[in-house]
Amino acid sequence: MITQEKQQRNWKPIIKEFEAVLGKNGVVQRREELITYECDGLTSYRQRPAVVVLPRTTEQVAQLVKICDRYSIPFIARGSGTGLSGGALPIENCVLIVTSLMRQILSVDLENQRVVVQPGVINNWVTQTVSGAGFYYAPDPSSQIICSIGGNVAENSGGVHCLKYGVTTNHVLGLKIVTPDGSIVDIGGQIPEMPGYDLTGIFVGSEGTLGIATEITLRILKSAESICVLLADFTTVEAAAESVSDIISAGIIPGGMEMMDNISINAVEDVVATNCYPRDATAILLVEIDGLEVEVAANKQRVAEICLKNGARNITSASDLETRLKLWKGRKAAFAAAGHLSPDYYVQDGVIPRTQLPYVLQEIEALSQKFGYKIANVFHAGDGNLHPLILFDNSVEGALEKVEEVGGEILKLCVKVGGSISGEHGIGADKKCYMPDMFSEIDLETMQWVRQVFNPQGLANPGKIFPTPRTCGEAASASKQQFEGVELF
Amino acid sequence: MITQEKQQRNWKPIIKEFEAVLGKNGVVQRREELITYECDGLTSYRQRPAVVVLPRTTEQVAQLVKICDRYSIPFIARGSGTGLSGGALPIENCVLIVTSLMRQILSVDLENQRVVVQPGVINNWVTQTVSGAGFYYAPDPSSQIICSIGGNVAENSGGVHCLKYGVTTNHVLGLKIVTPDGSIVDIGGQIPEMPGYDLTGIFVGSEGTLGIATEITLRILKSAESICVLLADFTTVEAAAESVSDIISAGIIPGGMEMMDNISINAVEDVVATNCYPRDATAILLVEIDGLEVEVAANKQRVAEICLKNGARNITSASDLETRLKLWKGRKAAFAAAGHLSPDYYVQDGVIPRTQLPYVLQEIEALSQKFGYKIANVFHAGDGNLHPLILFDNSVEGALEKVEEVGGEILKLCVKVGGSISGEHGIGADKKCYMPDMFSEIDLETMQWVRQVFNPQGLANPGKIFPTPRTCGEAASASKQQFEGVELF
Repeated sequence: MITQEKQQRNWKPIIKEFEAVLGKNGVVQRREELITYECDGLTSYRQRPAVVVLPRTTEQVAQLVKICDRYSIPFIARGSGTGLSGGALPIENCVLIVTSLMRQILSVDLENQRVVVQPGVINNWVTQTVSGAGFYYAPDPSSQIICSIGGNVAENSGGVHCLKYGVTTNHVLGLKIVTPDGSIVDIGGQIPEMPGYDLTGIFVGSEGTLGIATEITLRILKSAESICVLLADFTTVEAAAESVSDIISAGIIPGGMEMMDNISINAVEDVVATNCYPRDATAILLVEIDGLEVEVAANKQRVAEICLKNGARNITSASDLETRLKLWKGRKAAFAAAGHLSPDYYVQDGVIPRTQLPYVLQEIEALSQKFGYKIANVFHAGDGNLHPLILFDNSVEGALEKVEEVGGEILKLCVKVGGSISGEHGIGADKKCYMPDMFSEIDLETMQWVRQVFNPQGLANPGKIFPTPRTCGEAASASKQQFEGVELF
Repeated sequence: MITQEKQQRNWKPIIKEFEAVLGKNGVVQRREELITYECDGLTSYRQRPAVVVLPRTTEQVAQLVKICDRYSIPFIARGSGTGLSGGALPIENCVLIVTSLMRQILSVDLENQRVVVQPGVINNWVTQTVSGAGFYYAPDPSSQIICSIGGNVAENSGGVHCLKYGVTTNHVLGLKIVTPDGSIVDIGGQIPEMPGYDLTGIFVGSEGTLGIATEITLRILKSAESICVLLADFTTVEAAAESVSDIISAGIIPGGMEMMDNISINAVEDVVATNCYPRDATAILLVEIDGLEVEVAANKQRVAEICLKNGARNITSASDLETRLKLWKGRKAAFAAAGHLSPDYYVQDGVIPRTQLPYVLQEIEALSQKFGYKIANVFHAGDGNLHPLILFDNSVEGALEKVEEVGGEILKLCVKVGGSISGEHGIGADKKCYMPDMFSEIDLETMQWVRQVFNPQGLANPGKIFPTPRTCGEAASASKQQFEGVELF
């Protein structure tokens, strides 16, 4: 348990032990060097860790975790630190285990479509490694040029192409993990369906609370013969949303299907000037179709017809790589562009049934009016995964709290219409207080049973995912949040 | 714990309690009526349960389990009893909770492609219910006209179409379960990726050891616009196996890709007389291609070219439903037909990397020669899932033990080449002693952690999945098997 006396911990002997494992260069403890690690992509929360350690091997991770276990020190794993739910947010007096030196691609087996990587490997390095041979790694978060596979595993990351190909958990075949007592365990394997319990499934998306993945076996896919991107522009959100539903109902599953609203369109045109997105459109749809050439041609025709039937003004399409990238460029830059619209933005992540899109967007607009913050909407329309970007100025006192309230209202709206409080960014520190909106007490308790067996001391990433049984605003300590309300057996 | 004194249990008050929940008709205890429940599809093991109970609702299941929990009685859930690994095999003095009266389809939501069913619903009723609207349920075990969805969930069942569409776990969105203490818990939900731990993933395939599913939310898929079945016949196994590899390497994922050897071909032609399968072929491949019409036409052409390049003698194809069913008929009847070749057969289920097919089939032939049993091979070639059928006569003393030895050798062979001891039939009672061939002690222990939190008294389906730490032949009691070697925390 994490108790008060550990606040006055004597770190000297512990750091000595870390240095014995990693050498002096592998241990960061100077105040100014620790600043980098105070937060992840959720920059509104900050906490400096006591020490940062930088292992290179599974064996080193196991030794570090064993030291933490022996001294009862909470530890938190961190990949590239791009997560948006504060999953890698430090707590006071914790050790941050950073995997950014674990960047080896350990094996590539094209015949069986498997790649084994260390957790610090950057997402798009996997595709870069195998693309020459005609393969790719499907999950593609917007941050894919910087986020790590380890972080993707922790948060079960999605991306544009997850509509058709599934999120990270659908592409992880097996894992070598270090459990919170420092044991090294192999879960899953080299083939998709292993007998016994599906521990891989439970580990992926567990946000570092069940241990640290140190080797990850990924499934790679054969690149499609042909790819086409369509851009359709609409004068109403309803028409765009209706097109999304109709495309899926027609049995077409596009590689990706994204929607952007007028605010987002103008933001990206201001910043990256694609000159492809019509500034007067109320909404645009970007639909990527992949498959055999004949299949793509047929589906392109059908998608275009559906959009036109629903009132699309124009449809542009591109099959060559250069133009396709140009059409995607604005979507990929949307979050960054929002940063140019106002000093700060808060990105929310929720899921709704596709059929509820027009209603939910109306309600978000009403929240925008009520609270007085502009909200840009960019989202994975095909799977109903919303990303409202709430624009604000953090230097205004009380603004962050207000914006978080708006974000919370949006999540409650998602749950109300039968959706989810997280699509692909995870729960982390940011959303744990909304878990009871979605799960009953006994449902959450059942999850905590699993946490307890892997993590009985509660040292692996405490204070994440699970809410305190109290109201969310109360300043309960991480330890209390974790142990209260859980009666094991 | 299941201890000796419970063998002399006084069942009268317990049965009274069961009857209070279900009425007299819901409780089966007469010796002659219990015979039906002595085994599942693995008929070589038999054990009569003490009592059989037949609930109709979640609430009733919860009450029954609470009674078992209170009296520390082991209980085992059973669906249609078609499982092939003895997952529903009773143990002495157990209660069998049979879900065959829980046969309601609770809701159908075509717009969101979801169907909610009770566990006793038969697999192909789901497709029958939604096919008129152009949908189907993908997992299709050969036993689909009789096996139950609850049993499919327990064993994570596969089928011919799982090559392209995945096994049961890929089609279960959420579950209402009764945990082994009688609590009712909702796991997963109405949308594919829920936040928190993926308890649905761990429950599917847990073979009744973590509780009983009482409501299952299934994902249904849009039926393909066009389907075509190709039958290619070969004079060597290598040529057929090479074609399988080449088809996948070409980036084509058929809906199903099945191989049958000469023994199987002749068995089915003797019994069901399809008149489609050439009796002199060494092996045939059945390849089903689905998708858009243009896509199917193009892929059909490519598959045919690949087979011919590898030396196929003839290729037959069919797009109309009637001829397609005729081509599939022999494959679907293969297990039954094997029953006509000899008094008994033992079906094995193992997985190998596709590239190892020719080598493994040679080795199986060598085992057949060495032990003197004919072995017919029928299998899901596309995903390397073998189903060797070992033909024997159970009335010959010692034959079953010998055949089980052959089956074990085949499994070890699968593990040796990087495969798995089970593809889709589960571990159950039959294969638990092979788990250490595939998993290290700490890997198995980690799975048992999970079992312990859900099932601390060890009452839910004891003696399944996990091997005793002793040699497999030893007659350790179920309770010992379960608790030894597991040090929690």
